[in-house]
Amino acid sequence: MEEVKRASLEELTGFVNNVLKAVDADNEQARVFTEALIWSDLIGRPTHGVWRLPAYAKRIARGLIKCPCQPEYDQLDFAVAVMDGDEGLGHYLGHEAMIHSIELARKFGIGAVGVRNSNHFGTGAYYVHLAAEHGMMGVAVSNSISKVAPHGGIRAVFGTNPFAFGAPRSNGKSIMLDMATTAIAGAQVMRYAEQGRALPEGIAIDPEGNPILDPSRVDEGVLLPFGGAKGYGLTLMIEILSSVLTGAMFSTGVNSMFNNFEESGKNGHFFIAIDVSRFMDLDSYFERIEELLSLVKNSGKEKNNVMIPGEARWEQYEKNLELGVPLDDSTIKALQGLADQYRIPADFLA
Amino acid sequence: MEEVKRASLEELTGFVNNVLKAVDADNEQARVFTEALIWSDLIGRPTHGVWRLPAYAKRIARGLIKCPCQPEYDQLDFAVAVMDGDEGLGHYLGHEAMIHSIELARKFGIGAVGVRNSNHFGTGAYYVHLAAEHGMMGVAVSNSISKVAPHGGIRAVFGTNPFAFGAPRSNGKSIMLDMATTAIAGAQVMRYAEQGRALPEGIAIDPEGNPILDPSRVDEGVLLPFGGAKGYGLTLMIEILSSVLTGAMFSTGVNSMFNNFEESGKNGHFFIAIDVSRFMDLDSYFERIEELLSLVKNSGKEKNNVMIPGEARWEQYEKNLELGVPLDDSTIKALQGLADQYRIPADFLA
Repeated sequence: MEEVKRASLEELTGFVNNVLKAVDADNEQARVFTEALIWSDLIGRPTHGVWRLPAYAKRIARGLIKCPCQPEYDQLDFAVAVMDGDEGLGHYLGHEAMIHSIELARKFGIGAVGVRNSNHFGTGAYYVHLAAEHGMMGVAVSNSISKVAPHGGIRAVFGTNPFAFGAPRSNGKSIMLDMATTAIAGAQVMRYAEQGRALPEGIAIDPEGNPILDPSRVDEGVLLPFGGAKGYGLTLMIEILSSVLTGAMFSTGVNSMFNNFEESGKNGHFFIAIDVSRFMDLDSYFERIEELLSLVKNSGKEKNNVMIPGEARWEQYEKNLELGVPLDDSTIKALQGLADQYRIPADFLA
Repeated sequence: MEEVKRASLEELTGFVNNVLKAVDADNEQARVFTEALIWSDLIGRPTHGVWRLPAYAKRIARGLIKCPCQPEYDQLDFAVAVMDGDEGLGHYLGHEAMIHSIELARKFGIGAVGVRNSNHFGTGAYYVHLAAEHGMMGVAVSNSISKVAPHGGIRAVFGTNPFAFGAPRSNGKSIMLDMATTAIAGAQVMRYAEQGRALPEGIAIDPEGNPILDPSRVDEGVLLPFGGAKGYGLTLMIEILSSVLTGAMFSTGVNSMFNNFEESGKNGHFFIAIDVSRFMDLDSYFERIEELLSLVKNSGKEKNNVMIPGEARWEQYEKNLELGVPLDDSTIKALQGLADQYRIPADFLA
């Protein structure tokens, strides 16, 4: 049996707060960030969870992420808006932008908010679930540091550009589609490397176009979009919405949160919220969506052959809320490093 | 050298008009349909072009597609609307709905229109290009007759549910991403069958979950989404937007335009338009998008290794406008059948 180290939600939150306090980020924006970060661990996406805290803390300490930042809407025009994120925490800016999209959708039926001058925003699922909690369907997309070649290409143009879509369910466990538009998520490559495992083919190619199987060599080449030309098309769409349209940087203009400690991330995001209740009353909607989802769940040979997007996440969420947030070895190492660096008590890591 | 039979745009349009006249559909709605149908042939998507005319004509003649129909907006609520399509031509209703989305976006910055009680709407690219011609980004999605299993499933729940995204370019040749969310488009399967070619693996499975390679046997099993769980997630999103949210039928509630000549299609669609000029002036946008596209075009080993979504379509479009609309053998056979049935002169087919 696998033995998993777990921390209580309170202990982990307290520790993250202490780290943020140590880098002079003791404010409301940091609290939104902390909640979004740990939520990633809770739903079983540790690649976007507290494992990243050392990089965020270092960036905040160096002023590459401003916390607090002073975001400004430079356009407030009926159902759409663009926010200049002032190089703040991507999670905070994303949360603000989705909340504003929801407010616009409440007023106009649909609302869209673009963000520029932001940083890595974590898990797209967080924002679309936020929309779903308000009875809305949500879309959240972001560009990221360029390491993905277009279909047919050998040079990086795009980031792993995640696409997220969410829709409410009456049980509160939102449908959450959240995917990198690469054959593999960027953070997954790092995990392969940490764990010393070889990559499958179709993930990355070297400058000659040959497959790269050694995850530590991925930086010598580029990642590939999922599904060939189709995934490439989606990646391009995401880059257009989140950067071209918002005025954010794109391609090599976006900076790595792990490798560039001289400049802000300069990411762009784009959020859409659609108010379900403007199309039909919520009860009719819930009835219809459950009818569709039950067809989906019953389409397999056996029960649970088919999962609803988000379903496995919510199972993890409930389990982790009950048993504690799982911390794998690399996460424990990352947090222990912060505890040592900032002399913060971290008995829960022992 | 391949010899391709071509018809002049005028001849082909005249012939389609005559067929529609023969089934008592001589009106403005039929003219929008004809333009959209032939546009598919012009951009090199013959699977959605005049090859389908026999099925449309038969459906109109039987009253399964009403032409004219009397669509009604049962909700007109700021930036969103839902249209009851009155079982009209999907192309006409799609055109109306996208034009209305564009009007809403002109007013509010973004607009969305859902359609229910429609029929197969042809090529999604047609609608997103329409948005792009108006300086807008556009999204067009539709559900369709159920023949696709969710990832992990063996029974059909979804249609091939196309996803289309368009964005304007200053040269008028819009970016047009237009893809089935299956590993292969439904119409392509029919073409494989007509041409007696075997399907690759990963396209379709039989009721036991084994690959189907014989295209004529696809109806015994189900198609698979592209890109595994990711394509499945997109298909589910499209089904939710175009049917759950609009009140349209879904899954087995949608009827085949080729196999069911007793009932209307009952398809649902969903359109979004985003007014670029509300985010930045169009000149700045054009500069930014061309900068990104030039990075994309130059990411290959050689020129034209990488194509912009829609680029190959526009090349075909220009060639076909100049040389005439290409008609392959199965299309000629389909049109000749109509010529014989309705005693319409069709010298251009000889």
